Amino acid sequence: MTDLSRLTATSALSQLASGDITSEQLVKACLDRIAEREPQVKAFAYLDPDGALAQARAADAARKSGKGVGPLNGLPVGVKDIIDTADQPTQNGCAYYKGRQPQRDATCVTLLREAGAVIIGKTVTTEMASTTPNETCNPHNLGHTPGGSSSGSAAGVADFMFPLALGTQTGGSVIRPASFCGIYALKPTFGLIPRGGVTMQSHTLDTVGVYGRSVEDLALITDALSAHEPEDPGSYPRSRPNLRATAMAKVPVKPLFAYVKTPTWHLVDKVAQEAFDELVAELGPLVQEIEMPSLENTVANHGIVQAAENAAYYGRLADVAGDAISAGLRTRLEAGRKVTGEAYIKAVNTRETASREVDMMLASYSAILTPASTGPAPKTLASTGNPIFNSPWTFLGQPCVNLPLMEADGLPIGVQLIGARRDDGRLLRTAQWLGQHVAGSSAM
Amino acid sequence: MTDLSRLTATSALSQLASGDITSEQLVKACLDRIAEREPQVKAFAYLDPDGALAQARAADAARKSGKGVGPLNGLPVGVKDIIDTADQPTQNGCAYYKGRQPQRDATCVTLLREAGAVIIGKTVTTEMASTTPNETCNPHNLGHTPGGSSSGSAAGVADFMFPLALGTQTGGSVIRPASFCGIYALKPTFGLIPRGGVTMQSHTLDTVGVYGRSVEDLALITDALSAHEPEDPGSYPRSRPNLRATAMAKVPVKPLFAYVKTPTWHLVDKVAQEAFDELVAELGPLVQEIEMPSLENTVANHGIVQAAENAAYYGRLADVAGDAISAGLRTRLEAGRKVTGEAYIKAVNTRETASREVDMMLASYSAILTPASTGPAPKTLASTGNPIFNSPWTFLGQPCVNLPLMEADGLPIGVQLIGARRDDGRLLRTAQWLGQHVAGSSAM
Repeated sequence: MTDLSRLTATSALSQLASGDITSEQLVKACLDRIAEREPQVKAFAYLDPDGALAQARAADAARKSGKGVGPLNGLPVGVKDIIDTADQPTQNGCAYYKGRQPQRDATCVTLLREAGAVIIGKTVTTEMASTTPNETCNPHNLGHTPGGSSSGSAAGVADFMFPLALGTQTGGSVIRPASFCGIYALKPTFGLIPRGGVTMQSHTLDTVGVYGRSVEDLALITDALSAHEPEDPGSYPRSRPNLRATAMAKVPVKPLFAYVKTPTWHLVDKVAQEAFDELVAELGPLVQEIEMPSLENTVANHGIVQAAENAAYYGRLADVAGDAISAGLRTRLEAGRKVTGEAYIKAVNTRETASREVDMMLASYSAILTPASTGPAPKTLASTGNPIFNSPWTFLGQPCVNLPLMEADGLPIGVQLIGARRDDGRLLRTAQWLGQHVAGSSAM
Repeated sequence: MTDLSRLTATSALSQLASGDITSEQLVKACLDRIAEREPQVKAFAYLDPDGALAQARAADAARKSGKGVGPLNGLPVGVKDIIDTADQPTQNGCAYYKGRQPQRDATCVTLLREAGAVIIGKTVTTEMASTTPNETCNPHNLGHTPGGSSSGSAAGVADFMFPLALGTQTGGSVIRPASFCGIYALKPTFGLIPRGGVTMQSHTLDTVGVYGRSVEDLALITDALSAHEPEDPGSYPRSRPNLRATAMAKVPVKPLFAYVKTPTWHLVDKVAQEAFDELVAELGPLVQEIEMPSLENTVANHGIVQAAENAAYYGRLADVAGDAISAGLRTRLEAGRKVTGEAYIKAVNTRETASREVDMMLASYSAILTPASTGPAPKTLASTGNPIFNSPWTFLGQPCVNLPLMEADGLPIGVQLIGARRDDGRLLRTAQWLGQHVAGSSAM
């Protein structure tokens, strides 16, 4: 029997469905792996093994009863510690919130439970999902950052602690950790996954995203999470076609990629620049390099919006939290409080036009291909790395995928694909094609 | 033959439809009145009598041709000078924009033209539709303000220069001038009338409104202006039931009014307080006095949002306009530029909850009854009066009607009715009932 903790979610699911394995066995395998590795990797902010096993047994019982079960029945999912859970503390990675126990599940957690998932534990986030790291290490090399802010979710999927996880992205908090940890990630279109019960950083930027071990894994869990939440002005009431079916369908024509190095290409490590050049050479006529000088303004506008909204949603911590917030967070909040309404409104108002330009460009290209990070995970635990290859796309609301297709010196380097808003399915289908193409190619 | 310039729009329309009068006759009567009164009242920022007559003849020709004509065919409409017109200058009441000639009509002007209206001229606005008055006088007493910012539109309808007009309201700019000038006005639900081509002051507050000489007039023109504009995030894509039919229908049950004096009742002139007490006594069991202490916060939040958004949309005038803006506007813009993003976002975020409370309250009441202004028009041309009885409702996005039901010392005092959002029809029907009830009552 293979080590169940290493399965993709989709393959675990088919073995659960056929009765070859039980959720209890699967969760047990994950807990064994966690027991072995958690002291080094430190992915968990909260873990209750007995509670997880009880959920697993309930999922098994539901399946055995012959009643219909949800599409994630029995699958363990790690949940970032800024996402409320009624049965587990949610402490925002911040000493000020130590011991905080929400009364209600976040909407996305409710959706996971309705789908039959096992909430295996709460994963470490940076402080308030901002830039000050907490204790998680990169499983590929413990002296390197796993990225952030969804540090524990990414490290846990990468280190075989759980096959699926939830993260959130306001700057680069889903995609960058996936790049550093070498796993698959989707930051979907802004508004696809409901945000009720997720600690608010920024109402125009915050996006719930997912981690998995294949493109199909990403589609599987996102299908279960995709719902309209009328109370969330970012949520949109549209039909939501099945992503898994779309993602796994044959591409109608060979993809054409827009290779966007971005105006900050000079920040990319040489080793990653070379890896990208190789990938692009290998893709040959399927790639065209495109300049997008406007991304520089987008980075600046993202920074203004994030700073002002952070200040509005938890600037008060600078007044009330004393030593229970880090000096770094305090400095960020104080700077955010100085952003004027004028600057904020002007920055917000650039968004729709810029997003439409990208969507229009993606009428001619299957996806934008661009780095997911400035390179492999930096050798530090004092920083989670630079989000500059993520924050423009977060600002624009475009869906982004990380594919763990490259590596250097034993550390992963992610390839990021960007899609048109509200066409997450096409993006995943293109990502699936690229992953298979690279796997089947001799050059990689 | 009656003086055509005094007709309500609906009665002029039926005479146009029956062929009893022509648009040319109607517009001529209006132009005669304008020639007589404009030197004193100063309602116009731009007037081209020949152009107006040419439009009138075109409307007559269209009607005579036997083809279908629009619902306002041949009716003269005054258009506030912050609303773009491709055939007439649009100067925003501001020296900096002297001679500005837009290339395109605003969307609401396009809708007027499609409905067959005659754009009789551009009416005086305060500077940038803010607080610094321009030259218009109150037709009831030339030493008193007509109110603002839609000064010329309100004065012109009141002084029989045109039966219908467009204004805009960001604080109290439609309803207050109607109260001071003694005419009917509707500031509809936020988002009902498209704003494309209207000089932006505040994207969360700006609302195009209408003036007329009866409730039916208001419904007639609003029906022609009610359309969805996808480019305007404030515009909403909903079915828009015919307001005129709704407004003129019999009320299904006797109305019940919520009399809201507001936390700023002490600012109301004694003469107006007495007039309200009389009206409320006359309505007897059809009125219940309700306290809404939360309106005090609403006034404050409106001020923060308006200041920050004004700064974002034309704060640059403080840098570039030199002496071509007033000292008052400069001071306002400079103050607006100091509002922080944090304060702005927090203020904006109070809106939806507060609006829902009002909408829920209007499940039990037909309308809120409240002053339209602090009293009759103040004796000054240096100020347009206090918008404090208007700005909370503008902030909340509720529809508001002014009814010219009271007066003191030869000056009108308006009664304001407030409705639930997106139920402008019920509000107008209730307003029509109240107007008829007061007209038929001996006490008034």
